[in-house]
Formats: sequence, structure tokens, C-alpha cells
Amino acid sequence: MFPFTESAVDRLDHIGEKQLLRFIQEWLGAANPPYPRGMGDDTAILPPPKRKHLLLTNDSLVWKRHFDETASASQAGAKLLKRNLSDIAAMGGHPLHAVLALSCGADLSLKWLSEFFTGMAECAQQYGCEINGGDVSQAEPGSFGATLTLLGEADQPVLRTGGADGAWIWASGSLGGSILGHHLDFQPRLSEGQWLAARPEILAMMDITDGLSQDLPKMIPDGLQARIDLSLVPVSDAARAAAQDSGKPAVLHAFTDGEDYELLFITRPGIDPQEFEAAWRKQFNHPLTAMGSLCSAPPPNGSAPSKVVGLDGGNLFEGEGFEHFRIQR
Amino acid sequence: MFPFTESAVDRLDHIGEKQLLRFIQEWLGAANPPYPRGMGDDTAILPPPKRKHLLLTNDSLVWKRHFDETASASQAGAKLLKRNLSDIAAMGGHPLHAVLALSCGADLSLKWLSEFFTGMAECAQQYGCEINGGDVSQAEPGSFGATLTLLGEADQPVLRTGGADGAWIWASGSLGGSILGHHLDFQPRLSEGQWLAARPEILAMMDITDGLSQDLPKMIPDGLQARIDLSLVPVSDAARAAAQDSGKPAVLHAFTDGEDYELLFITRPGIDPQEFEAAWRKQFNHPLTAMGSLCSAPPPNGSAPSKVVGLDGGNLFEGEGFEHFRIQR
Repeated sequence: MFPFTESAVDRLDHIGEKQLLRFIQEWLGAANPPYPRGMGDDTAILPPPKRKHLLLTNDSLVWKRHFDETASASQAGAKLLKRNLSDIAAMGGHPLHAVLALSCGADLSLKWLSEFFTGMAECAQQYGCEINGGDVSQAEPGSFGATLTLLGEADQPVLRTGGADGAWIWASGSLGGSILGHHLDFQPRLSEGQWLAARPEILAMMDITDGLSQDLPKMIPDGLQARIDLSLVPVSDAARAAAQDSGKPAVLHAFTDGEDYELLFITRPGIDPQEFEAAWRKQFNHPLTAMGSLCSAPPPNGSAPSKVVGLDGGNLFEGEGFEHFRIQR
Repeated sequence: MFPFTESAVDRLDHIGEKQLLRFIQEWLGAANPPYPRGMGDDTAILPPPKRKHLLLTNDSLVWKRHFDETASASQAGAKLLKRNLSDIAAMGGHPLHAVLALSCGADLSLKWLSEFFTGMAECAQQYGCEINGGDVSQAEPGSFGATLTLLGEADQPVLRTGGADGAWIWASGSLGGSILGHHLDFQPRLSEGQWLAARPEILAMMDITDGLSQDLPKMIPDGLQARIDLSLVPVSDAARAAAQDSGKPAVLHAFTDGEDYELLFITRPGIDPQEFEAAWRKQFNHPLTAMGSLCSAPPPNGSAPSKVVGLDGGNLFEGEGFEHFRIQR
């Protein structure tokens, strides 16, 4: 749905900021707790967290970058929150509180914005977090950007680093082709992340947002490399469909497409992967795949050794993921 | 300083996101603590707070809305953080942790951005808070927006509501004309807010950002009104200078200009204002003024009674402050 309008009565500048804040409170409903925990002051007053560590993350959603008119407004609102929930999931954390900053043109449609907020609010209720407050700024006509900051907690947060020689590399779900729909319809893997964080086998975890080829190297300690069995990589149906259009191998899509929002994690050496997967399957219907392991990298011969290699030791697609800002050469 | 450039080597798209994140870490210096408390993962892992309540606030800084080329880049960076610090100050809180979301065009100048970050980092060090992480999104060329979310803590946070009949109304500092420089060079009143929050006399507090005429009504409970002695309102030298240009009374500038970032607070009825001010003066060189008191509003005769009146009971400027988005009629 297109977010902007010329209709005099459906535009943000028809109501002004005070009325907008009253509307937002209504749209958020039960996802916005009563003042002073919720809207009403510039600062939300929150109860202290119960677990040992606080988690703090933020993500933005920009019109024409992270969504376009093919997304419904409620999908866009939910996506902004789910991007953040996925970051908390990747730590094995529990989401708690959020604040939202909107920056939009005066021609933003109120109907669109109401669905954006109700989509976000439903998602907040579903995953048990609150939208506690926020900020609104006016920007150029035709522009919409939103930043959500999410606070969470965990007793044993899992970092993205911490692998060891012989450790197994796993992914939840299936990968690639998210542009065909998954980038809007994904589920942040909160229960899965919490379950994994409590397992003694876990060494490191992250969520896959920039594509396996960009994200996996971030997890690999110096001196090690990831050896991936390409035949085991969980290729999604969407990646196969994308491959039919692009003429590239489906596994390349699984490696280099962004926005999978699945968990990528490493378990300690010496465990039985079948036992681990069986324990997972008792909890979750969602697929889990061990697709490779960490091993010692060969000594550098001039250039740094590859971070991600195939079974034959050859470099795998590294650096072909999506990088913001960089000029394509 | 103008934030955008056509110089091929001074632009964001010359380096790409990975190198940008390395630069940001360097620019932030000691304001960014070591991983995993600081940059490196999508989520920062923070120690639990020590005080009873968590505080969460956010504010944005948009090019051409909150700053222009008359601001140095370091002033712009510091302003973004200080806007948030002022919200924590108004609760009597202590700032702890922050995350930053940048949304900017690929033509943003690296030199400008480095000064933006170092200005913000110096301010973070000065007020004892950390910049723990963030997010970067690409937006249209020529655009720059940044949202900072600040976490704080307090044992006894002060709300903006809580006045009572006969209570005194106070403001720190002097008001009006901030556009002549104060909107960039202000000091968030953190020590003052913490001192006030610990005083038994305090009933309610906020910071003045939209102008006294818009902010004071937000503090006044139903059935009460603020009776202000106009001759006592602390008019700034900048408001007097602005009045010379605008031809309006200086006190009107003191009431209706935005971005004072001073504390507006209410103390309980029956206290001796001279004693209270003397106690303040032992701690702070900064001025403090009792400029009126709360009293019962007359019964409504059709329309709601005015929230802010003069000594003669007449309506004072109400509604003339700045409101975002609203079409000027």
C-alpha cells in the first residue's frame, strides 16, 4: 500500500502533533501500557529487569529501502519490530520494552499510519513486549523512516563470536529468496533462541540478515575457517524460484540473499549432531541443519586465508552478500 | 558546516558500511566501551542498572529541521545527545547507555560525520554515559537523520504531572530566543534535576523544549490553572535581542520560543520559596525563579478554563508555541 496521499483529510498535517499522539495511543492499544510506563512523558519509567543482563538493540525501516508499496502497512509495522526481535532472539534473550522514532512527511496517510501501528502492536502482543513511547519528527514530503529501539534481558546472552576448532555450524529454517515474501512474513526465532542459549552445547549465535556469505565470516575467530558442505545447505523453495529467474544456482541465492532472519549458530566440538537435532525436534517443528564445521585455516601465504570454504577447501562466495553504501564496481 | 559533498574520497559511498563501522568505533573512542558492551554485535549486552527504575527516551535530529549549516558538525552531534540527556535530567535521572540510528545519503561527508561523532562522544564522556551501538541505513542523497535512544536510571523519578493547589511554579535559567545560539550550546540540567528529584518539596518536573506556553499546560492537573506573574518570568538576553528584531514583547519570546532545555518544576504548597532558592544557590550558580503558582480554575462556562493565566486571571499566550505538522492557518 502506498503510504502518502493528497487527500486533505487523510494526511498527517490535517491533525497536528497533539492529535497524532492521541491517535497513536489508540492504535497501539494494549501494547502501550498506562502512563508513566507508557506514552505521556518524554521518558518512559520502566520496572527493573529480572534477569542478569540488559540487551539493547535498534533497527530502522526506511520507505523504498526496507519496504515498498507491495507491503501492507501492517506488514511494514510488524517488520520493523520483528527485525529488532530477531536481534534479541539471536542472543537468546527475552524482549521487554521499545521506543519508536518516526520521521515522516506531512503527506503521510493517516489510514496507512494507523495500520502500520496496529500491525506493530499486534506483533508486540504476540511476542510479549511493550511499546513504551517515542518521538515524531517532520521530514520531506514523500519520506518515511522509523527507528525502533528494543530493550531485552537474558541470563546467559550468546555472543556471535566464540567458535572453536571442530565445532559444528548450524542454521535454522531454510535460506535464500526472501525478497519473494519471507522478508515481510518471517517469524523472529525467539523461543528457539532462548532454548539454544540455555543448552550447554552453544558457543556462538547470530541472526542471518545480510546473507550467510556475509554473516558467517563475522562468527569465525582468527586462525579458523568454516568448511561448508554445499549439499547440506538448507535451500528454501523461494531460493529455487529466484534461481529460475536469475539463472544462478539456488545455493548461491541461499548464500547471498539477505533478510533470512534465521538463526546461525555454532555448537562445541565433540557433540553428536543427531542427538542435538533430536532434542531440538522435540521442541520445534522448524527445520535445523548442521551444514559444516570450523577447522584450522591454512597458514597465510601473502593474503589472509578464506573464512568460508567448501569441502575441497576452495573459497565460497565470500563478500558477495549485500553491503550498504558501497559503490558497485 | 554543510554535511554533504561531491568529493569522491570524502563521501560515505567511498568506503562502504564495514569500513564506516570501523571509523565510527574510532571516532567514538572511550565513549564506546569494549565488545560485547559496545559495538560488534547487533545487540549490546549491558550490566543491570543499580537504581530502582529504568528510564528510556529517544529523540531525533534531522537536517534542516533541528540544525543547518550554521551548526558545526560537533555541535550537531552533541545536540542530539543533549536533547536526550535533557529528558533524563527532567526525571531527575542518571544517564547510562545509548544506541544511535543513522539514516543518511551516500553523499554524506566523512569529515563532517567524523566531527559529528567526536562531538557526540565528548558530550557522552562529559555527562558519564556510553554509546553502546547502533544501526546505519542508506537514505536519499542530501538527507541526514539520526535517532538516539538513551537508557537511564533513577530511584525516585519525577513525573511531569503532580501539581496541587497553591504549589509554586519554577524555572531554571532564562527563557526565549534560543534560535540565536542557545539551541546548540545548551547544557542539559542533569545535576540540577538529580538534586531536585531528591528534595521532598518536588511534585512535578519537565524540561522546556516546545516553549513555556506549550509545556506548562502539560503539567497542570484538571481543575487547576497556573497563575503567572509576567514581571517575574526569567527573560533571556537572547529573547530581548529577538524582540528587537520581531517587534514583539521579549516576554512573548520567553513564553513561545522553543528549545530552552531548562527545567520547569512545581514544588508543594506552603514551602518558603526564598529558603528553597537559598538551598539551590548553595549548589548551583545557575538562576532559579519562582514565577507563579497553581490555583483552582474557575468553573467552566461553556468552554474549558484557561490553563495558564496572568495575575488578572486573563489567558496568557496559550497555544502559541510551536506544534509540528499542523498546517498554519
